[in-house]
Amino acid sequence: MPLLTLLTDFGLTDYYVAAVKGTVLRLAPGCQLVDLSHQVPPGDVATASFLLAAAAPTYPAGTCHLAVVDPGVGSDRRILAASTGEAIFLAPDNGLLTPFFGLAEVRAVERPDLYLPAPGATFHGRDRFAPVAAALLRGEPVERLGAPIHDPVRLVGSAPRRDTTGAFGRVIHVDRFGNLVTDLPASWLPPKRPFLAQVQGVGETVRRRITHYGELAPGEAGLLVGSLGTLELSLNGESLALRWEVSRGALITLSWNDPGPGSIR
Amino acid sequence: MPLLTLLTDFGLTDYYVAAVKGTVLRLAPGCQLVDLSHQVPPGDVATASFLLAAAAPTYPAGTCHLAVVDPGVGSDRRILAASTGEAIFLAPDNGLLTPFFGLAEVRAVERPDLYLPAPGATFHGRDRFAPVAAALLRGEPVERLGAPIHDPVRLVGSAPRRDTTGAFGRVIHVDRFGNLVTDLPASWLPPKRPFLAQVQGVGETVRRRITHYGELAPGEAGLLVGSLGTLELSLNGESLALRWEVSRGALITLSWNDPGPGSIR
Amino acid sequence: MPLLTLLTDFGLTDYYVAAVKGTVLRLAPGCQLVDLSHQVPPGDVATASFLLAAAAPTYPAGTCHLAVVDPGVGSDRRILAASTGEAIFLAPDNGLLTPFFGLAEVRAVERPDLYLPAPGATFHGRDRFAPVAAALLRGEPVERLGAPIHDPVRLVGSAPRRDTTGAFGRVIHVDRFGNLVTDLPASWLPPKRPFLAQVQGVGETVRRRITHYGELAPGEAGLLVGSLGTLELSLNGESLALRWEVSRGALITLSWNDPGPGSIR
Repeated sequence: MPLLTLLTDFGLTDYYVAAVKGTVLRLAPGCQLVDLSHQVPPGDVATASFLLAAAAPTYPAGTCHLAVVDPGVGSDRRILAASTGEAIFLAPDNGLLTPFFGLAEVRAVERPDLYLPAPGATFHGRDRFAPVAAALLRGEPVERLGAPIHDPVRLVGSAPRRDTTGAFGRVIHVDRFGNLVTDLPASWLPPKRPFLAQVQGVGETVRRRITHYGELAPGEAGLLVGSLGTLELSLNGESLALRWEVSRGALITLSWNDPGPGSIR
Repeated sequence: MPLLTLLTDFGLTDYYVAAVKGTVLRLAPGCQLVDLSHQVPPGDVATASFLLAAAAPTYPAGTCHLAVVDPGVGSDRRILAASTGEAIFLAPDNGLLTPFFGLAEVRAVERPDLYLPAPGATFHGRDRFAPVAAALLRGEPVERLGAPIHDPVRLVGSAPRRDTTGAFGRVIHVDRFGNLVTDLPASWLPPKRPFLAQVQGVGETVRRRITHYGELAPGEAGLLVGSLGTLELSLNGESLALRWEVSRGALITLSWNDPGPGSIR
Repeated sequence: MPLLTLLTDFGLTDYYVAAVKGTVLRLAPGCQLVDLSHQVPPGDVATASFLLAAAAPTYPAGTCHLAVVDPGVGSDRRILAASTGEAIFLAPDNGLLTPFFGLAEVRAVERPDLYLPAPGATFHGRDRFAPVAAALLRGEPVERLGAPIHDPVRLVGSAPRRDTTGAFGRVIHVDRFGNLVTDLPASWLPPKRPFLAQVQGVGETVRRRITHYGELAPGEAGLLVGSLGTLELSLNGESLALRWEVSRGALITLSWNDPGPGSIR
């Protein structure tokens, strides 16, 4: 049973998600649909990109992922199909697929024969993305969707960095529990060495490394390895993001003593 | 695989949607369920009616649509089955199915043999609608659900109207992005003629017609053809409904110069 | 088609639900997934327990229910599998499965061979619960998941009670409509006898028994038999919980005249 995931900023109060699904099911009967999320903040391409990169690796080979966070809908922005061998991703050419560019062949979809007649140009999710996804689910080879391109729009972000005394990164996601997910690889933190973590603009420091939330006393913040293999700052049973008033993008500094040259693992 | 869509005002925090689905899956194993929306404001039959009319045409022939926004649950209000040849709609007799009455044969469902024993009369979604939907999914002919009726409850709304100098309609939906979806057919706006759009109670005017949101400067409102073929007022990347404090039902006036008799297209 | 329901406190804005689903679909292709709810308040085991007990009985025999509300994730809390003959329930050992303990054989899952390698210990939903659920969906006998136990963690709650003059219970759920669902069995209310219902801390009384919401005048509260067979206090078309400022746990007192010994039905 062909599998399609859907990621949008359409929310769950409108008819938009249902219209995309109806169109896919009409054109590719019997496929299985899974919601990745439809609660991406309106137009927030970076959040969509993060969620897709985090969830997609769990899906079976052959899965098609449709991601429509598309503030440029109706303009001449391209529609991209990125194929990794494992999966195929469809999204507007606005940077959403950035995490996959290194692994994927990227094509600009040009299949007006697939697009549906539409009254306007505001709902390509239903009128263009859905029929293209349905074609893939019916077995259309991705090579026939359009020619490879080498200039997709990329999200530009500062990569985390480190030196012998510390590491510098960002909060890349605040989850429902108020955990601060960072972009600092967990492997960067020297094991068994004292450290100090700080978030830009917050007058608190964290010195405790834990493996799970339950180790923390009420109100105590700790550092742990999160579900994506990066470091995460958390409270136990309470939102750290709310308590510290931290949102995505905040700078994180990790400091430790310089153990001398050559010691970074 | 028989397909059922579900539209309710049950929300996603309760067990109500899950109980409807469980009942359908118990009585019609192997059917495919798709959420249309469960975030209809409690008891808001007009919103449910709008969403169903907007989404249903995208679904494959043979789809069954179950819509339970039912403030009269437990009273003697009827349960309706409306069949269009393309699809079958189940809903309480409260006007929810008004958009389909012109196209459908409407029946009052009377099948106590299908209804489930229930402790009370507050959850017909689980106890009556679900087993009736399951019967349809198992192949029960709609003709056997009950006799045709000709007096279903109708939602009464003012139709949009126009004359040689303008058109008068309403905001019929405010979507997640804050777009003001109107009931004015896009074809009513004379092409290439200057116009002026106004929303009741708002001291702003719109004179610009666009094809997509990206054409607008920050804070500039424009008029475009929306996804249902009606005119829509929008900002780019911001909610017009919030900025202008407009909600569903607001009056919209479009004015243009009178080009003389016979010129309305 | 094997059926799995999912109940979590992950919300719908993160990638967590999608990652659990992707993992299940990767390891048990072709299974059918149904969301019970993902909007359980973070860490609220009691609400999860209520929702699961309310929804599960509607599902077909053989259904597997996965419930991950797991504030102790990563600690040494056990993972439980409870099998009733009708269904199998997977959840952390934190009381969530309390309603099923009387009906089920309960096992402590110990299958590290099934668990996925993981960067950290914060996401057992993806790394442990999902592969165990997938194994069940593939036909793994529940007996092979681990040994029976007799000391699962239980939610402790006060049971409702009654005497000849009244009954005493609690609000066990406030639903989206603001109905106050109590734990008082509907059969406890003597039929055709005047009664008086009161909620702790609320200066209002209810003396009217109804069968459906529509019987009530605007602003009038009534007592009726809810969808779980317990008594419910409600307004018509308005939230009683908001109007009276009542939340889960509030005490409910029902009083009626003492009809003499032996008369409680």
